[in-house]
Amino acid sequence: MAGYHDIKARRVGLDTHSEAIVLLHSGSAVCRSEGFAAHTRILLRASNHKVVATLFPVTSDIIGCDEAILSDSAWSRLDLKDGDTISIEHLDPVESLSLLRSRIFGHDLSENSFRAIIRDVVDGRYSSIHIASFLTACAAAPLSEKEILGLTRAMVDAGERLSWPEAIVVDKHSVGGLPGNRTTPIIVAIVTALGLTMPKTSSRAITSPAGTADMMETLAPVTLDAEAIRRVVKEEGGCIAWGGAVQLSPADDILIRVERALDLDTQGQMIASVMSKKIAAGATHLVLDMPVGRTAKVRTAQEAQELSHGLLVVAQAFGIKTRVLIGNGDQPVGRGIGPALEAQDVLAVLQCRPDAPADLRERATQLAGALLELAGVAPMDSGAALAMSVLNDGRAWRKFQRICEAQGGMRKPPVSAHKQSLHAQASGRIAEIDNRKIARLAKLAGAPEDKAAGVELLARIGQDIAAEQELCIIHAESPGELDYALAYAATHHDIFRIEST
Amino acid sequence: MAGYHDIKARRVGLDTHSEAIVLLHSGSAVCRSEGFAAHTRILLRASNHKVVATLFPVTSDIIGCDEAILSDSAWSRLDLKDGDTISIEHLDPVESLSLLRSRIFGHDLSENSFRAIIRDVVDGRYSSIHIASFLTACAAAPLSEKEILGLTRAMVDAGERLSWPEAIVVDKHSVGGLPGNRTTPIIVAIVTALGLTMPKTSSRAITSPAGTADMMETLAPVTLDAEAIRRVVKEEGGCIAWGGAVQLSPADDILIRVERALDLDTQGQMIASVMSKKIAAGATHLVLDMPVGRTAKVRTAQEAQELSHGLLVVAQAFGIKTRVLIGNGDQPVGRGIGPALEAQDVLAVLQCRPDAPADLRERATQLAGALLELAGVAPMDSGAALAMSVLNDGRAWRKFQRICEAQGGMRKPPVSAHKQSLHAQASGRIAEIDNRKIARLAKLAGAPEDKAAGVELLARIGQDIAAEQELCIIHAESPGELDYALAYAATHHDIFRIEST
Repeated sequence: MAGYHDIKARRVGLDTHSEAIVLLHSGSAVCRSEGFAAHTRILLRASNHKVVATLFPVTSDIIGCDEAILSDSAWSRLDLKDGDTISIEHLDPVESLSLLRSRIFGHDLSENSFRAIIRDVVDGRYSSIHIASFLTACAAAPLSEKEILGLTRAMVDAGERLSWPEAIVVDKHSVGGLPGNRTTPIIVAIVTALGLTMPKTSSRAITSPAGTADMMETLAPVTLDAEAIRRVVKEEGGCIAWGGAVQLSPADDILIRVERALDLDTQGQMIASVMSKKIAAGATHLVLDMPVGRTAKVRTAQEAQELSHGLLVVAQAFGIKTRVLIGNGDQPVGRGIGPALEAQDVLAVLQCRPDAPADLRERATQLAGALLELAGVAPMDSGAALAMSVLNDGRAWRKFQRICEAQGGMRKPPVSAHKQSLHAQASGRIAEIDNRKIARLAKLAGAPEDKAAGVELLARIGQDIAAEQELCIIHAESPGELDYALAYAATHHDIFRIEST
Repeated sequence: MAGYHDIKARRVGLDTHSEAIVLLHSGSAVCRSEGFAAHTRILLRASNHKVVATLFPVTSDIIGCDEAILSDSAWSRLDLKDGDTISIEHLDPVESLSLLRSRIFGHDLSENSFRAIIRDVVDGRYSSIHIASFLTACAAAPLSEKEILGLTRAMVDAGERLSWPEAIVVDKHSVGGLPGNRTTPIIVAIVTALGLTMPKTSSRAITSPAGTADMMETLAPVTLDAEAIRRVVKEEGGCIAWGGAVQLSPADDILIRVERALDLDTQGQMIASVMSKKIAAGATHLVLDMPVGRTAKVRTAQEAQELSHGLLVVAQAFGIKTRVLIGNGDQPVGRGIGPALEAQDVLAVLQCRPDAPADLRERATQLAGALLELAGVAPMDSGAALAMSVLNDGRAWRKFQRICEAQGGMRKPPVSAHKQSLHAQASGRIAEIDNRKIARLAKLAGAPEDKAAGVELLARIGQDIAAEQELCIIHAESPGELDYALAYAATHHDIFRIEST
């Protein structure tokens, strides 16, 4: 079918994350002739690119009859410049939706079926409605082991794949965001200082107060393309880059956003998500950090066992030597929560400062140790000690600085302009710290958009506390944001649970 | 929490159907302080109303830092006038999502659980992502009979309910849109001419080329509020009104849109959807028209039996005497497809014109006959004959005119400005007519927005056809739309399947 040509593309900075949205005047030739209505999925084409977008018609003159307002996501997928025109067409039926329906009605999907679905997801042919249905269908009748493998393979094949000349390429992943659990930069520094290759790509925060990429960005540039990553890794053996700049398992990024909106975590989906990223990154040896706690992502030991089993099955099928470390997830790790505050913790550990948070140091060296053992650099049960020695003698710190320089230059994390402490209402012992509420507090203070914002934790579980003693300091970049976080704290007295002693 | 006040509400005619969307400047105090990002669900308040909306931030100056652009749906739900201000707050967690999650993971829902979910759906607290997940969960593990009853009751209770002084109130519903199957106005005219009460509320098209309300609107006003409906029914015994103006089972309208986007029909959901509307409309006696055919909604006799059983179980639980008529759904009914063209068929049958489509006349009198028998007005097996006599002696036509007058005045359906015929490419016998493709053709020609647009069918299954004989005429209101339908026809030769004889 012919389609409508020469429609002026206009950008107004409409932020919809990855969702492609287009606004057209309801009186435009294309809307009238095609009978396009709200929510119609239509195909937009520019010279070399195409994207499927959801339409919303507009009746007012904020938009002309010969133009289209595109969301930023649609704009960048079409690689448009100001003044460019696009053409608009009907969308052919999305064939793989019949496979989705058959999954809903109880039939297992083959690898090829997952491939067709994931291809359509990556090409933007699925709206969030379809993605929500796919995720729900894969939760209502859990994915079989065979299906998890098929889905993982389909997700890997739908994106780019990094390959490395080295026989051993190590990687690390933390399942379930525990606030402040920022071991990655420390681990990379330790294992690369010992000659291992660790091309680490990390994510930015989606719903948390900071992702590793957000934190790392306060210390060095992280937006590296595949070529820059290869150069840094060749020079220094490792990097800590933002994964979004290279298209590793792009389906995962799309699925995760809808998963978060649904607040729906399913094991099969999570396994395919984690493993597809690691396979695409070219890892051969992998350590998985799995914190378990009442307010962590994985809540019980049994859940941890099941998830761990599923991850190991997939890892084995793809020939990745993997170890899962199940650890305590009852409270945040380190002191800082928020990009710059977490960076301070990382620096303190790397610089072996006396005030460095012991739990972060402990955790990072254990995970690094496990990687060293797995890769044959340290004998069993001696990896953590080796990691600690590399930290203590300054090699890790020197290596980290060189990596930062190679990524574009080391910098100082920003410091917040406004802060205020929260105090204990009564004396006693800290019995519980709610990870989710601490994260919320940090986000209300402005993290991760405001790099210096967040929460500085001054109390740990088991610690004895006097009435009026400081529990934490809230950091913000503006008084309004500080107030907002304080208002939340004033109505949520269960962020810290204090037992009278 | 306090929220942000005095934000100027602005309307630009943004049509999103029922979905509430709000655009805010990304640099506005509320976005910055609250960390609101794309897809955040936020609560908007005006003096007496509130609505939950999905946020998209905008960076350009098409929007000021102190204003909010609202979709028309959000605007009307807040009952705003130009110059009004709103306040914006964080949305508290939606409690019933935990019930949705438990349904996903295999637990049946109680009536109270459905009530909580449906209440949140109607209040706009569920985004389409959540609704898609709910529908998928109810399809992946089919609803039990008990659940269907619970869901039906919850849907009825979430809306308005009409009540009538008469002991017998009849109603009719057609399950699955067969193009042109416009029996409703004829049935209402027949049974009310015989003294029965039939306060019929019908829907507009969602994805079809015409709903009964769209068709009826070419003959008389259909946007009647509850008071107007009561008056018309008191005067004439019946009406043919648009259901959207009275809030009968409003959840149904919301769920159906997402269902259509997913192309997901599940029996339990469909039963609750149909029956909740009928119960809310106050029906005591009900006839269900169920066309079965390869390109109809219900495709096999077995499917029809199961669906029929489910509908009767719910009908009985709510004390509604119900009969299901399973009929042939192999091809469209009547000649016209599109609002005005279908109205012409209805008029031809009511006026007993010799060229009136026999199948529409047959179908309408059978359904009317079943209602007459069910309500005790005609003995068993004599209802259809009684209905036919009321049609033949002009009583139905006179009654129909009076109903139109009572609804605001009878009018003439518009006539299309442009038309062109499709011709048979070879001689033979018509073996199949694709309902879905005929509907698509009518929509491409402009139906239902353009009332006169659509398809006039000149061939029926079993008919012998000469090469180059006319198969149908496409009607459109502009040459461009006509061309578009013709282009579709040129690439889809299987709209009519002709067997050589």
